[in-house]
Amino acid sequence: MRISELSAESGVPVATIKYYLRERLLPEGERTSPTQASYGIPHVQRLGVIRALVDAGVGIAGVRKVIGVLEEPPENPYDLLGAANAAVTPVVDGDLDLSAATALLERMGGSPADCFPDQLRAVAHALATLDRAGFTVPPSVMDAYLVHLAAIGDAELAATPETSMDDAVRYVVLGTALVEPLVLALRRVAEQIAASRRFSARG
Amino acid sequence: MRISELSAESGVPVATIKYYLRERLLPEGERTSPTQASYGIPHVQRLGVIRALVDAGVGIAGVRKVIGVLEEPPENPYDLLGAANAAVTPVVDGDLDLSAATALLERMGGSPADCFPDQLRAVAHALATLDRAGFTVPPSVMDAYLVHLAAIGDAELAATPETSMDDAVRYVVLGTALVEPLVLALRRVAEQIAASRRFSARG
Repeated sequence: MRISELSAESGVPVATIKYYLRERLLPEGERTSPTQASYGIPHVQRLGVIRALVDAGVGIAGVRKVIGVLEEPPENPYDLLGAANAAVTPVVDGDLDLSAATALLERMGGSPADCFPDQLRAVAHALATLDRAGFTVPPSVMDAYLVHLAAIGDAELAATPETSMDDAVRYVVLGTALVEPLVLALRRVAEQIAASRRFSARG
Repeated sequence: MRISELSAESGVPVATIKYYLRERLLPEGERTSPTQASYGIPHVQRLGVIRALVDAGVGIAGVRKVIGVLEEPPENPYDLLGAANAAVTPVVDGDLDLSAATALLERMGGSPADCFPDQLRAVAHALATLDRAGFTVPPSVMDAYLVHLAAIGDAELAATPETSMDDAVRYVVLGTALVEPLVLALRRVAEQIAASRRFSARG
């Protein structure tokens, strides 16, 4: 199909498609003349992935990393999962005290060696932000986070498709980044349902 | 203290403090002369809250809503929790099919009446984004999200402080918005620990 058809099919404006082509996020089409190229279903799918990542708040640098993993998946499955997960983990700069984050990791049954440094740093950064705001997570709530997020991680990993490496990368990369808004939205709804249950029972 | 001291104490540049004053996110200090005002500990705390929300990715409009709830808390505790939660829920524009989101809510034991429309719309928007990327959450994983996020919501609500209305608002508003990066960071770490356990057991 031509670029105008690719635009209609994917819902992405032609100017944006050209930007993605220049940024090499989208592979070139097959040249059909010096000024025209032909695009196929893989281009539509790639545009779907890019738009979904952008919608989920991943920046262009993150999109580039994700596409790098999709295009050249590592051979070892553990490296694969790590690379995919790290590609969508925001990088936090600056000095951070990692001791509290490490303690949480250990309470989840892991160790810093299981993670990429950016992942541990993201936990430490989140804790530092809470500290600065003078907000303390109650111990019973932190226990709930560790237990229930560990269970979610296990369920997510257990469902990794074993049909092909490509399917597994796609699942991990998209599942990590794209599912985040769903997890947050469901958490808010869950809080609201819990509140409704408590206050309607009272009064 | 003078504005320069407030800046040193809070770590927020003077120009930024002046911006927050103009935007009425921070109350005026007590006038000590036509060109000077005096600030106190409540200003330091308010700046901590604002910075923490900004760091957590909440926009100025969201910060304004949160501060509105902190300054004029509703009387009914359920309205209070809802207003606080809604203040930090991003608003999604446009037409959305709410049926799948409503079904998830019901599986969590709730109904749309328990939630603010923006909260249900956030779930629907997250589902639509996944759809557009061609990503399906495996049923076993969706089950895990519903069960474990409901448990997290219950634990969070049960820990709401009953010491004062002010403490409760602060807990709900900050707990909802500021804890999100921690929840996401812990989920990534949990996935990595699960992966490490699975592949080290194999190899």
